[in-house]
This record gives sequence, C-alpha cells and structure tokens, in this order.
Amino acid sequence: MNFVSRSISRMAKYTGKNLASLSEAEVKQWIDSFDTVLTDCDGVIWVDNNPLPGAPEVINKFIENGKKLFFVTNNSTKTRPEFVEKAVRLGFNVTIDNIISTAYLAAQYLKNVGFSKTVYTIGSTGITKELDAVGIRHIGIGPDTLQGTLADTVAEFVPDPDVGAVIVGFDEHFSFVKMLKAASYLNLPGVIFLATNTDERFPMPDRVIPGTGAIVKAIVTSAERDPIVMGKPNPYICDVIRKQYNVDPARTLMIGDRCNTDILLGKNCDFQTLLVETGIHKAVDIEQYAASDDLDTKALVPDVYLAKLGDLLPFL
Amino acid sequence: MNFVSRSISRMAKYTGKNLASLSEAEVKQWIDSFDTVLTDCDGVIWVDNNPLPGAPEVINKFIENGKKLFFVTNNSTKTRPEFVEKAVRLGFNVTIDNIISTAYLAAQYLKNVGFSKTVYTIGSTGITKELDAVGIRHIGIGPDTLQGTLADTVAEFVPDPDVGAVIVGFDEHFSFVKMLKAASYLNLPGVIFLATNTDERFPMPDRVIPGTGAIVKAIVTSAERDPIVMGKPNPYICDVIRKQYNVDPARTLMIGDRCNTDILLGKNCDFQTLLVETGIHKAVDIEQYAASDDLDTKALVPDVYLAKLGDLLPFL
Repeated sequence: MNFVSRSISRMAKYTGKNLASLSEAEVKQWIDSFDTVLTDCDGVIWVDNNPLPGAPEVINKFIENGKKLFFVTNNSTKTRPEFVEKAVRLGFNVTIDNIISTAYLAAQYLKNVGFSKTVYTIGSTGITKELDAVGIRHIGIGPDTLQGTLADTVAEFVPDPDVGAVIVGFDEHFSFVKMLKAASYLNLPGVIFLATNTDERFPMPDRVIPGTGAIVKAIVTSAERDPIVMGKPNPYICDVIRKQYNVDPARTLMIGDRCNTDILLGKNCDFQTLLVETGIHKAVDIEQYAASDDLDTKALVPDVYLAKLGDLLPFL
Repeated sequence: MNFVSRSISRMAKYTGKNLASLSEAEVKQWIDSFDTVLTDCDGVIWVDNNPLPGAPEVINKFIENGKKLFFVTNNSTKTRPEFVEKAVRLGFNVTIDNIISTAYLAAQYLKNVGFSKTVYTIGSTGITKELDAVGIRHIGIGPDTLQGTLADTVAEFVPDPDVGAVIVGFDEHFSFVKMLKAASYLNLPGVIFLATNTDERFPMPDRVIPGTGAIVKAIVTSAERDPIVMGKPNPYICDVIRKQYNVDPARTLMIGDRCNTDILLGKNCDFQTLLVETGIHKAVDIEQYAASDDLDTKALVPDVYLAKLGDLLPFL
C-alpha cells in the first residue's frame, strides 16, 4: 500500500470530522498527505479587505514548505494582477502564478481552443483585461441601454459578424439590450458560450445583490443554450490545474467556506477537502448534510473542518 | 348519458384529429359541444397587425351565436382597452369584457386578495395602467440604471417600506439595478411575487428578442423564490374564468397555435382544445407528441386541429 492510497483510506475515516479533535501526529500526517493547496478567498483567508487571523501566516508557511498553492475565486470583476495586489497588501506572499480566477480561466479557454475572433462580453474589465492579455478582441462592456423604442433598438443593432464567443460574468450594467445582443449572437452557429460562474446572489442586510448566476439564467433562458461554466463547483478548473501545473488530485487539498461550491468542487475533482467556519457554512450544516439520505447532499460533507484556517499554524 | 359526458367521450375518439377530415354533421356537433371559447391572439386570429383570413368572421359568428368569447394573451405590454382598440380596428366585434390579459389578471389577483400597499413593477404601462384601474399604487417602471458605482447605487437605494408585492412582466428597460431592487423586496417577509408569463423568447431573423421568462428567471435566481404565474399554461386563468364568468370547463374550447402554452393551458383546465396551423406548431408536431412515451409530451396533443380558424366559417 503506497502513501497516496494509505492517505486516502485514512481520510475516509475522517469524513466530516473536526481537525481539532485529532492528535498532533494525526494532523501533521494529514498535512503531509497533500502537496497542492487550492483555497477560496473571501470567508477563508480574508473578509472584504481584512485578512482572517493567522490566515496569511498559514498560507505563507504552506508556500515555504514547498506546497503548490492557488487562490481559486469565482469573482470575475478583478484581473489576476489586481488579486495579487490585494493579497500582497493583506500579507500573503503570492505572485500572479498563485491566482486562478474565472476571468483568467475564460481567457485561457479561448486561447487553448485557438480562438481568433471577437468576444461579446457581458461583464467588467476584470474579464476584458484578461482577454487583452491573450490578444483576444472584445466588445460589449459598459452601459448599453434602450435608445428610443425597442423597435428602434432592434433595428439599430447590427450583429458584428466577427463575434465567435459570448462570455457572461458579473455585470452591474446588465440590461435588456445586452440580453438581446447575447441571445442573438448565441443563436448563430458555432458561437462559444462561456460563463465565469453561477453564484446566485450576495445577501446583505436589507439588500440582495444579484450574482452572476442570475444574469447567466436570463441569458440561458433567452438563448435556449447552456454555457461552459469556468467557476466552482464545475470541474473545468481541475482540468486546467492538472494539465497546466501537473497536479495529482489525490494529493491536492481544496479549502473553502461554502460546501456547495468549494467543497463540491473538491469532490468533483477527487481532491481532499477542508471546510473552515469563518464564512458561509458551519459544523451544524455538515451534520445536516451527513444525516441526509440524498447522495447529492451527502457529497457536500468535507473530509475535515476547522474553526479557522489560522488554527493550523501550530502544526506547520 | 348526458350531452356533456357524451361530447367528452366523443372528443376522446378525435384526439389529434384534423377537423377537416370529419363530416359536416360531426363538425357541427363538435361546435355545439362548447359554449365558451378562449382564443390566443397572435398566430391564431392575427399576425402582428394583419387579421388572419376568415378569423374575424369566425370570431364574430361565435359571438352572434351566443358563445362566451375571450381573447387570452400572455402579452403584458398592452392594457385591455389597448387590446380592444386593436381588435376592433382589425374587424373583431369585441369589447373590454372579451379580453383576458396577464397584466389585467395580475391587477385582479392583488385586488382579490385585498392588497392595499405599493407594487414594485418590472414591466411597462401595460401593467401599471391596469393597477391604476383598480386603485393600486406602484413604483419602478421606466429606465433605472447604475448611478456612479455599484456601491453608490446600493447605498442610495432605500427600500420603500410600503412595497408589498413585486410584479414582473416584459420590460425593455430591465437592468441590474431593477433586479437588485426586486430581489431585495422579495427577501422581505410577506411580499407577494407575481409574474405575468414565462415565454422565453421571440426569435426573429438575425435577432432574438428575450421574453418575460428570461427576466423572470433572473429574478427567481437572485430572489431564491418562485412567482405565481398569471399566463398560459398556468391554470390560474381557469380559476378566474370559472369564478368570474361561471364557465363550465367541459363545455369550453381553448384555441391556440402553441401546444406548450395554449393547448397545455386547455389540458391543465380540462377544456377542449383546438390547434390552428397559422402560427408556431403544425400537424407534424402533433404526430411527434402523440408518438412520445413521455406523458408530459403526450399532453401537448390537442383534441383537434385545423389549417386555419377561418376554415370553420362554412359550418357556422
């Protein structure tokens, strides 16, 4: 029995277990069982512009100890350099190679299929700067609203014959006119349809900020087509990491605060999984999932969980 | 065996049959088997601004012969008086009492539940004029786009504490900001959620015009709630007709050109059904549905079909 299969069978024993309940030797053995770490950002290593206690130290120790490390974010509004700038400012010793964002993945997807046409983009400069970086032309970002009547707008819209893909990400300027244009392009043969992510919404006190998923659903309904989704929990990220960085899934750990995106991504990619309780989901949620008869719900249970990422520091 | 059950058992024999293949006596017997007629408009009695051949004469004969007649439309952009104006102009001898539109149904729904607050409306004056007609306050229609940054817009949005319902219909000014407001209102306890209809889209040459269904899907995703849908094929229309007009479903005929809205509404309401081939679906579609093993697909088969409504004229 080699170490990999030993570590996997050992992990099965710990499904849904609190890391804090294990012995020091067991935690250290667990840390030795992975050499690649993928981590979600908001709610795991920082909240808005504040690093979570001990998170920078743990991430920096992982890197010092030779683990490959990737920040994996569904947020499509920032470019990778913008993520690096924020991470460094908050104390994380990372470079652009440590960042996997959905805007980056979308640009890479098109580059990898040899795309040489124009992209109609519903989204922000987070996406278009990544397209610029790989030399792909784009149209569509910024405000685009009804001019005159709907009939005028329809008549004035001359589809650009060079458009060969539509990317949908978070767009605070999303409008009926953008939906009309995206659906019209997606009706043409061969046009590629990518979505950065499908997060439904961001609840705040007294407000609900719609997520990219709401915009994607509007386009899917009017285009009568489904997109290739770049973000968690879709396993496309896994393909990229395995091919581009030569990563062994069994020796990879996915860390997150949301079971239905982060942990599910880990499960979809055959990674090990760790939930931290500094964001959306908590131990009580894990208990509920574990007690369910539904296999899709049971799949949301992480291998292990921990109150906060910083609690790993004494073991590193 | 009374006439109603006789006519139903007779109809079962004709499922999916061409009316033109029946004898004159059989067609006349069929016409005698209903005393209420519900008909879709576009693709059945007119196309855009042109009446279909013979359609005004058939509809006018139905009315002369004492049948209750209703135009039933999912279009939420016109008020009932505006529909009457168009119908009369195209040769139909109808009044406001012959029109059932989804905007009217939404206003009636709120009136019937004793609603006395304000409606946040995603839609057009087709909806708000119907609300005005029953004395219900409303906010929201017209352009509403991002002012400054998203953070500015979120901060400036002060939810109106009097809003007690959200109506979603066709809105060419639909925007991210409107989605944010609707989802925020729908997050409050007790707020009613109505949608006029869920038609996905209107394909045109080289263009796709998104339908109300695409807007509804965006709101449903960000609000994490489902609306009460007024339009076809939802049986809410049936409730209204039965209560308000004392109609017997078994002696009611639904005429349409779309199996998945018009015919399905008829089936959902236990009406008799007639497909005319002047719009979306044709005899070849009926054959496909009839051959399916799937019961939901089989339900799309109308009792009878006919090339065009005007072909009934010789029998009236």
